[in-house]
Amino acid sequence: MVTVAIDAMGGDFGPEPIIDGLIDALDERKFKAILVGDQDAILSYLPQFYADHIEIVHCTDVVSMSDAATDALKRKDSSIYKAVELVRDGKANAVVSAGHSGATMTLATLRIGRLPHVNKPPLATLMPNISGQKSLLLDVGAVTDCKPRNLYEFAVMGKAYAQEVMGINRPRIGLLSNGEEDSKGDELTKETFPLLKEITGFVGNVEGRDIFNGSVDVIVTDGFTGNIVLKTSEGVAYTIIELMRQNIKKSIPAKIGALLMKRKVFSNLKKQIDYAEYGGAPLLGLKGCAIVSHGSSNAKAIKNAIFQAIKFADSKIYDKIESELEKHK
Amino acid sequence: MVTVAIDAMGGDFGPEPIIDGLIDALDERKFKAILVGDQDAILSYLPQFYADHIEIVHCTDVVSMSDAATDALKRKDSSIYKAVELVRDGKANAVVSAGHSGATMTLATLRIGRLPHVNKPPLATLMPNISGQKSLLLDVGAVTDCKPRNLYEFAVMGKAYAQEVMGINRPRIGLLSNGEEDSKGDELTKETFPLLKEITGFVGNVEGRDIFNGSVDVIVTDGFTGNIVLKTSEGVAYTIIELMRQNIKKSIPAKIGALLMKRKVFSNLKKQIDYAEYGGAPLLGLKGCAIVSHGSSNAKAIKNAIFQAIKFADSKIYDKIESELEKHK
Repeated sequence: MVTVAIDAMGGDFGPEPIIDGLIDALDERKFKAILVGDQDAILSYLPQFYADHIEIVHCTDVVSMSDAATDALKRKDSSIYKAVELVRDGKANAVVSAGHSGATMTLATLRIGRLPHVNKPPLATLMPNISGQKSLLLDVGAVTDCKPRNLYEFAVMGKAYAQEVMGINRPRIGLLSNGEEDSKGDELTKETFPLLKEITGFVGNVEGRDIFNGSVDVIVTDGFTGNIVLKTSEGVAYTIIELMRQNIKKSIPAKIGALLMKRKVFSNLKKQIDYAEYGGAPLLGLKGCAIVSHGSSNAKAIKNAIFQAIKFADSKIYDKIESELEKHK
Repeated sequence: MVTVAIDAMGGDFGPEPIIDGLIDALDERKFKAILVGDQDAILSYLPQFYADHIEIVHCTDVVSMSDAATDALKRKDSSIYKAVELVRDGKANAVVSAGHSGATMTLATLRIGRLPHVNKPPLATLMPNISGQKSLLLDVGAVTDCKPRNLYEFAVMGKAYAQEVMGINRPRIGLLSNGEEDSKGDELTKETFPLLKEITGFVGNVEGRDIFNGSVDVIVTDGFTGNIVLKTSEGVAYTIIELMRQNIKKSIPAKIGALLMKRKVFSNLKKQIDYAEYGGAPLLGLKGCAIVSHGSSNAKAIKNAIFQAIKFADSKIYDKIESELEKHK
């Protein structure tokens, strides 16, 4: 049975949504959970029935959003450090944290360690698309300055995740660029292009809009561009919904219209684009599973991140990545 | 009076929407227009009254979307070549084209020429934001691989455009990065940061979401990232609207709701995010004005691009850019 270590303290809203999410997850699936954080705080949110079935690893320190990621290595009594350490020590198969994402990435990379053939572990994220499926974008912020070899490894890892965790048999892999033609790109992507041609399923350069139109399953980019793309997407979605809200407020017929559309349109749309439905962002290429959740995760986001961690930890993704990278050193 | 040369042939839908847009523009403002393209085709769409007041420069060749931008220099009888040449020769102050954007950029840069202190002319585009204002993103595709000096020049040119054409007295200028802290960025933006600190109005690093939240007026990035951001934004907006449309179709109350929301919500939203309202993308740093319009521009987009060209050509942006770049060589 998979064991998931959960950082109870790191989120923007304290332990409550994290523990609520864990309870919801335990109600739906069978797995072992270890909660890491202040025991009193945890027990004040955790009903006795669940407390009897969960291990708690007590600690008092929390790495906060204003702390530097580089300090995380020294914060040995922090909830994120101890949660990562459980994976390192083989006491858990996966760690989920809604805390400081830089700290989680640093600790997971340095303490759990990279798979032998991986140079830099990327952070991947699921994006909604128009076909109702999800596409995987990576890297979204772990490796800011990339070399072609990094992008090649991201493509291999993204493909393995799509196959082993997302259940896509033959993932289509695209290289994010400023045009679809083979000749398009900046220096980095032009040098990367021939490397990716070695990978079965590579469809060539793709554009920003292809992330959402269902034409590709895995989109490969450097962590600088990927991070900007991710935040741009959130910004556009928020802006459109906010502009509609402002317009609705100004008209009574529109208010009635919005009520009529609430259940079948707005609720569905929210479900289709809400990150809480998608779990968290998996850090790939490590000797264990680490899921980085949004700081403002609600209970549903945490529940889905735990399910994702279980699926990830239970998969053959590690072997797949290693055997593929070994072939093309 | 400003004279605008218009490439009548380049758009995806032929001369009709371009000529319709010009007619609408002539009905609203006073300026001189020169239409460049096949005379018979132009006259078949142009009522006699307007034909009497417009100069037509006849030519038969058209650079099509499938042609290479680099060939444009040899296509001396093409509509875009001749339209650009009118600006070079001082017969027009501005050129507007909805044709091959690479060809337009190449020709404008090489034939009209750069301002003395500009190394590479960037393509800028207006983005909608939540405050109902517009922000200027540049470069969105002219200069794929940039040096810090290029980004510095983009910032100076974007600021000048915001002041002289958009009418923003004290534009706030941001450097697009993967986080707001000064320490964030890739190699390029980290080297650029200290250069931008020399510019009054520089607010530091901004994130993808800041393009749309009204916190900044000018967003500076390289042409690779900017192009991806632009197409990602279009992709997200299209996806959200398409997902709503799909959801509306499935429910009768939702259909009624959508009807009630049509005028005050959806029409307003369309107006707020539709590129046709924004004109085209100005190419900055040249000795004349060039506006690159969307290939699928409708009459409204062309009309707004012409108005933008008039405002641009009538402004003091050239002096502003030169005096500012001269100060910090």
